[in-house]
Amino acid sequence: MSEFSSITPALLVAFEQVVGEAHVLTAQRTEAAAYADYGRDHTEDFHFEPSVVLRPENAEQISEIVRLCHEHRIPVTPRGAGTGLSGGALPIHNGVVLSTERLNRIIEIDERNLQATVEPGVITQVFQDAVRERGLMYPPDPASKGSCFLGGNLSESSGGPKAVKYGVTKDYVLNMQVVLPTGDIIWTGANTLKNATGYNLTQLMIGSEGTLGIITRIVFRLIPHPQQDITLLVPFRQEAQAAEAVSEIFRAGIVPSGMEFMEREAIVWSAGYLNIPLNLPEDIRAHLLIELDGNDLERLYQEAEQVYSVLEKYDIGEILLADTAGQKEELWKIRRNIGNAVRYNSVYKEEDTVVPRAELPTLLAGVKEIGSRYGFNSVCYGHAGDGNLHINIIRGDLDDDMWNHGLREPIKEIFRLCVKLGGTISGEHGIGLVQRPYIGIAIGEVQLDLMRGIKRVFDPHGIMNPGKIF
Amino acid sequence: MSEFSSITPALLVAFEQVVGEAHVLTAQRTEAAAYADYGRDHTEDFHFEPSVVLRPENAEQISEIVRLCHEHRIPVTPRGAGTGLSGGALPIHNGVVLSTERLNRIIEIDERNLQATVEPGVITQVFQDAVRERGLMYPPDPASKGSCFLGGNLSESSGGPKAVKYGVTKDYVLNMQVVLPTGDIIWTGANTLKNATGYNLTQLMIGSEGTLGIITRIVFRLIPHPQQDITLLVPFRQEAQAAEAVSEIFRAGIVPSGMEFMEREAIVWSAGYLNIPLNLPEDIRAHLLIELDGNDLERLYQEAEQVYSVLEKYDIGEILLADTAGQKEELWKIRRNIGNAVRYNSVYKEEDTVVPRAELPTLLAGVKEIGSRYGFNSVCYGHAGDGNLHINIIRGDLDDDMWNHGLREPIKEIFRLCVKLGGTISGEHGIGLVQRPYIGIAIGEVQLDLMRGIKRVFDPHGIMNPGKIF
Repeated sequence: MSEFSSITPALLVAFEQVVGEAHVLTAQRTEAAAYADYGRDHTEDFHFEPSVVLRPENAEQISEIVRLCHEHRIPVTPRGAGTGLSGGALPIHNGVVLSTERLNRIIEIDERNLQATVEPGVITQVFQDAVRERGLMYPPDPASKGSCFLGGNLSESSGGPKAVKYGVTKDYVLNMQVVLPTGDIIWTGANTLKNATGYNLTQLMIGSEGTLGIITRIVFRLIPHPQQDITLLVPFRQEAQAAEAVSEIFRAGIVPSGMEFMEREAIVWSAGYLNIPLNLPEDIRAHLLIELDGNDLERLYQEAEQVYSVLEKYDIGEILLADTAGQKEELWKIRRNIGNAVRYNSVYKEEDTVVPRAELPTLLAGVKEIGSRYGFNSVCYGHAGDGNLHINIIRGDLDDDMWNHGLREPIKEIFRLCVKLGGTISGEHGIGLVQRPYIGIAIGEVQLDLMRGIKRVFDPHGIMNPGKIF
Repeated sequence: MSEFSSITPALLVAFEQVVGEAHVLTAQRTEAAAYADYGRDHTEDFHFEPSVVLRPENAEQISEIVRLCHEHRIPVTPRGAGTGLSGGALPIHNGVVLSTERLNRIIEIDERNLQATVEPGVITQVFQDAVRERGLMYPPDPASKGSCFLGGNLSESSGGPKAVKYGVTKDYVLNMQVVLPTGDIIWTGANTLKNATGYNLTQLMIGSEGTLGIITRIVFRLIPHPQQDITLLVPFRQEAQAAEAVSEIFRAGIVPSGMEFMEREAIVWSAGYLNIPLNLPEDIRAHLLIELDGNDLERLYQEAEQVYSVLEKYDIGEILLADTAGQKEELWKIRRNIGNAVRYNSVYKEEDTVVPRAELPTLLAGVKEIGSRYGFNSVCYGHAGDGNLHINIIRGDLDDDMWNHGLREPIKEIFRLCVKLGGTISGEHGIGLVQRPYIGIAIGEVQLDLMRGIKRVFDPHGIMNPGKIF
């Protein structure tokens, strides 16, 4: 756009001097499909072409790149693994795509302090497995954990199924190193569990979607890994009852380590996508997938009994209790692959709604009512324990006009309902590009002005991931 | 100071119109001792006289007051219960002291969603007791919980002994209503466990020590209350071993709900202050107070056995296991009253240092070495599980020059040691007035500039709690 400059040949040479020629990718030099990937993420079917892709290997190189971009008014789009669902990594103003793929080291796992220091390009599951080997746990596990990067998890304030008991990504970040949009390198906090020293820059960075700087190092806190877990799959004959049961279970004093809601279509599509045979009676409309964890298996069976008691009053089918590694993995694999299965079946728009958990039945009913009024189908699933419902609006037979314009009003209605119920429009995917038109539904003009003011303090030239959030 | 205006008689009348004459206190109208209290908190022996004390009863009145102050450049010092330990509530530029004492309602305890909505003037323990009656828990419990206000807890990012397992105040705040320094009333977030919608204004407000606005309503998340707990008091013959044992216990996979360190003097002074007889052998130099909680008493005894195994290798005295309500309460009462006991014995300066927990022995040894080099005594205690050590420097026989000036260098040395160990200069008390000269030790100039920039965005005239933090 007009406020930004183009990348000159001289600037390209300067970038090469910083990161080396092999790590300066352009459309001319790079295999087309590989290059195109840098212009995409997992959000619908968007693509924007980067002017150049840079792959630095450390904070110092990133600082030099950003300093050049700051000086020359070049937009910078930080990029992790590109698994985002709100378009945060899309280079909508072209310019530099700055990939963190080479910052992929686990620098230290400090067992004395239950902390770890990593670079942002470490894959979430790789990190989880590494700490697991030491008996430790890093709980946040977004569905894309096998490919997403920790830096992206921080940028989008990712969650996942374990959040219900263990909290989200932000709850495990103690400190981070960041390259600011001016090129300065800072640490945001301290490596401590408590910190009352100045404003909380750490939490301000988390969820800022790459608009305030580039994360180059992260200090996480870890917890001892629970030694046991069991998983229950509970089939319901009515969606609304599944949603209602969620808050009942918490009120009984049980805090599951997972509490997932899946509509019938979600589980059927995912099992189909994975070629897992499923004998699902016709009258089952939804499932809850409940995980209980702890150090004492007997205790978990007692808690499972308590869950059964709570569920007695609902119209449910036969509960499947999974306590072998194979059974449990199969159930969770189905849950994690719903997104992929929906993507495989149809183009879709995913809304990442979140409400106080007891409002879930009202939200679900509202979504279906809005869908039937406007004429679209949706597959709903998500982290019911957190009140976090992923609404996948299926393209199906919708024409271009309806898909590109006609859905705006119903999406607004869904979001207004969330806010009315005490919730908001994104629980863990971020605003990015696709929810930007709707942010005013969740956040008032005064708050947005504060956020824009903060953005200007960090990024006076507005080069860092422009066009995202607001 | 020169950038601010004085309060004119006309403005005083305007304040009376907002809050009613009975709630506009001045030195002329008010009993001297009661008025003086509004110029003090629990920080050393400081006193600053407010020009006027206002006691509004709701956000709208606060908004009107702040609008007037914004327009007329009058400094506003928000005040909770005045139990702060860094001088955050001291009206160092005179002006308006805005007391939240009348905003003291628990508005709702929502058992369906495990949430509660409160006003900022609710006493922490009153809130804890109210949710406990419903089987719920609000874990943060600063030592002053019997008198401090929740709003102050948020402003200073308070912690307390349960933080080691359950986190600090910030981990329980979902959303808050705030009157900005311009008089605008906003909500900072949503009533949800997850939120990836714009910058995290909630966490930016928490710990901002009243410099960014006045909290007028808080939405907390709650958890089911654990049904059982036991407390162990472990006497050590060497301070360093007590500090070392802390991280060993965590490495054994145990997460205590309390893990407090107390030097000999701390426990002796507090028991003396409370008139609790104590038969402490001469060779005991320190204690760990360890709480284990959960829903299964048998399991807790098993965990206690594990703790005993870890402790076998240390030179300890006889462990006291407290499992009756009376025994437990007595032990925790001693712990909570250390601050009062120290205050009763001597004027003191309290440093709220925090380091990664395994660095505690190094910090403790460093503090003692610095003390002996500069010639002062300290009583150390605190939340060892968090690496949060409260260092009480005792006035004793120190002369005025040493007390007022001579301690600056050793305090700087202590803080530099904290930062070198990966820690920082305040874990839960805030910077306020007294740590302001030292903030540069913990936070670099670039970060401070970001914070000052954020401050200007929120408070263009700099009226809100001026002279605190930076």
